[in-house]
Amino acid sequence: MTPSEFDYIETHRDRFLSDLKDWCSIPSVSADSHFKNDVVHAAEWISKKLTELGFQSEIIPTAKHPVVIAERKSSNPTSKTLLIYGHYDVQPADPYDLWHSDPFTPVIKDGYIFARGVSDMKGPTLISVFAIEALLKTYGDLPVNIKFLIEGEEEIGSPSINDFLSTYKDRLKSDISLNLDAGMADITKPGIVYGLRGLASFELKLTGPDHDLHSGSFGGAVQNPAQALSKVLAGLHDEKGHVLIQDFYASVRQITAEEHEVLLQTPLTSEKVKAFTGVNETWGEPEFNVAERLGARPTLEINGMISGYTGEGNKTIIPSWASTKISMRLVPDQDPHIISELFKKHLEKVVPSTVKWDLKITGGSYPFIMDRDLKELAAFSDSIFKAWDIKPIFRREGGSIPIVNKFKSTLGLNSILSGFSTPDNNAHGPNENLCIDSFFKGIKTVCLFLEAYAK
Amino acid sequence: MTPSEFDYIETHRDRFLSDLKDWCSIPSVSADSHFKNDVVHAAEWISKKLTELGFQSEIIPTAKHPVVIAERKSSNPTSKTLLIYGHYDVQPADPYDLWHSDPFTPVIKDGYIFARGVSDMKGPTLISVFAIEALLKTYGDLPVNIKFLIEGEEEIGSPSINDFLSTYKDRLKSDISLNLDAGMADITKPGIVYGLRGLASFELKLTGPDHDLHSGSFGGAVQNPAQALSKVLAGLHDEKGHVLIQDFYASVRQITAEEHEVLLQTPLTSEKVKAFTGVNETWGEPEFNVAERLGARPTLEINGMISGYTGEGNKTIIPSWASTKISMRLVPDQDPHIISELFKKHLEKVVPSTVKWDLKITGGSYPFIMDRDLKELAAFSDSIFKAWDIKPIFRREGGSIPIVNKFKSTLGLNSILSGFSTPDNNAHGPNENLCIDSFFKGIKTVCLFLEAYAK
Repeated sequence: MTPSEFDYIETHRDRFLSDLKDWCSIPSVSADSHFKNDVVHAAEWISKKLTELGFQSEIIPTAKHPVVIAERKSSNPTSKTLLIYGHYDVQPADPYDLWHSDPFTPVIKDGYIFARGVSDMKGPTLISVFAIEALLKTYGDLPVNIKFLIEGEEEIGSPSINDFLSTYKDRLKSDISLNLDAGMADITKPGIVYGLRGLASFELKLTGPDHDLHSGSFGGAVQNPAQALSKVLAGLHDEKGHVLIQDFYASVRQITAEEHEVLLQTPLTSEKVKAFTGVNETWGEPEFNVAERLGARPTLEINGMISGYTGEGNKTIIPSWASTKISMRLVPDQDPHIISELFKKHLEKVVPSTVKWDLKITGGSYPFIMDRDLKELAAFSDSIFKAWDIKPIFRREGGSIPIVNKFKSTLGLNSILSGFSTPDNNAHGPNENLCIDSFFKGIKTVCLFLEAYAK
Repeated sequence: MTPSEFDYIETHRDRFLSDLKDWCSIPSVSADSHFKNDVVHAAEWISKKLTELGFQSEIIPTAKHPVVIAERKSSNPTSKTLLIYGHYDVQPADPYDLWHSDPFTPVIKDGYIFARGVSDMKGPTLISVFAIEALLKTYGDLPVNIKFLIEGEEEIGSPSINDFLSTYKDRLKSDISLNLDAGMADITKPGIVYGLRGLASFELKLTGPDHDLHSGSFGGAVQNPAQALSKVLAGLHDEKGHVLIQDFYASVRQITAEEHEVLLQTPLTSEKVKAFTGVNETWGEPEFNVAERLGARPTLEINGMISGYTGEGNKTIIPSWASTKISMRLVPDQDPHIISELFKKHLEKVVPSTVKWDLKITGGSYPFIMDRDLKELAAFSDSIFKAWDIKPIFRREGGSIPIVNKFKSTLGLNSILSGFSTPDNNAHGPNENLCIDSFFKGIKTVCLFLEAYAK
């Protein structure tokens, strides 16, 4: 039996799409001060939309770009409160010449809308807004209290959000949060992300001689810091991809047999990784499958390294120094501070005494995991199943969504992480797009979830 | 008993110095086309000087900068012929602000002349010219036939010299060559360089994914090419500094007990290396002393390496590729072509199949060694002893002097390698200088050698 609000959604398809195109035509690029006014304009656009739906909406300035917060209560005084997260800022659209159409003139083609920000995350933000509109217009009420927090700095690392959350903690008080910025693994696999990896990042510099040396005059008498760094870096993994820092895995939560089965549903196979990346072979801890390695296992990566002469031709020197940037993806229950200490201890043991070394800790965030049995997750999962007619998957994501940690630490809120964008929507690249069918299935999913969550 | 020509030298000290200052005031920077006319001017200056001494001198154009060749015979028809090598071009003087006086306005201070090119190698070239002048003015004849080859492209890698030597092979026919571009280890250790290292240089690039990957999305599934390169580079040496390429040492000429004693005279100790380079500890094959490691043992150095993100802050990527520049210093009887093949075979064994690799051979030159018992070396050594009152040392140098190989391969000539400049004369740096006392002892050394060589 189709719920009544689905009729409203079907009747208003064109208007929803035209609203989405309208919002996406505002170039709200948070990274580029040329677009400062457009950023404000995009905040005003969504605030007005929420006001029209009976929300108390406010555009609150920060040191950089404003945050929109809005609230509308259910008429039921015992209702729970859901905080819906969104962001109205977008990535820069450069290089423009790689786009097939203007990034800020949305175009519909073959069932997809093409525009900067349509998948990340103006589309996902409007999915919740239109679900609420459909319920309100159909039933005249909301099943639960709704709060919105829609920021304008997500694409630049949310520099104002920590202070903002602390200041507006009381006004943002809720029972749980919905975050549709996580997306789907592919268009046939809607689902829920129940884990994110954390991060610990570093810069390591090894210094040997106090200036670059002539390799003829000193080669054979002085240890080359690039060679010393290679030894250090090579010693961080065994041949199979296990990290060799002592106790690195000590706090890693084991994957249970049941979770192993769950993660087998993730459509991330070696074949897919090879096709996407162009490598001949995948690599990593052989006792885990790719989805486990990417979501539930920690890793250590060299993000960059540099030493000596790297220009054209030759320069026969022993470089004075060699440096590298390293990041580690962490999983529950690893703590970035403890991991940083373990790394430092490891270096104390392995860096040769012929060089001086300096380690800078450049970043850290905690991994995140939710209990898959939480009833809100079950409710969201059921809603996906009903709206999509596909059994949803539970997956862990390899990256991090920093706002999830901030909501947890500052507001004490868990986040239901889902979404309806896919990796091939080119979120940060040219020709960003969103599947229109997924957009409407998303709206229906959120309608069903709000009703289920109320029960 | 002091030879008569020494009186001439003493009498003409001021004029010799003023000639040296005059030549050094011409900014004959071969690398910079702004100085093209000055380069020609410097060639004309030395050609005129030799003409005044009765040489048949010619300035011969090449594709870039001219070569001066000059000849004067002894009146003795059975005389041997010595080819004296020199170069009249100099390194660029930048950065000018590090000079205490103008690089092309020679200044005498505390027994040293400061000027670009004074030690490398206008001073050493004039040492031979003034020795010949002293002999001619004192005795009216030369003890041996003398040819000069003075080029203007040494500081830019002598691009024209191979063709030039082939073309003028007959005119340059001689018995042996004297090259004073090798210098002394320090001011108290004049001597002869009887060995030079050769070179084999490479660029190696490892490519993994076809674009930089998000380390959250792919960390754990794809081998990082920077990590793979680190393993390859780390595997090129053992902990003690031995190169681990199979058969790398197979053709290395062993150091005899006698040569071991000879090389112990080289004033290159661990303490000196530490003082000059600022390292805490020296490093390298522990079974050899520093002078042996630098002169008589081959090495492999990472000259540079680069991968991924090396700018400010973080970028959590798996880089698409990692590359390195490597050079090997070779000793007799290693062959750069064979060594390149061994390196390639080594890489075939060790580069993991997860990455593609490309090796470019970017340079190669043969090592050089002379028999220390050669009578011309003994004659030069005796001359040093008489002029300096210091027992000369025989040493091997870690770098290469490419012209020595070219004289050998094209003209069939051995080179007596010596010189009176020291490493602290800053040959290629600011405040280049030459010790005036060494300059005059050098002139006397060459006088004595020419007389001894004639016998």
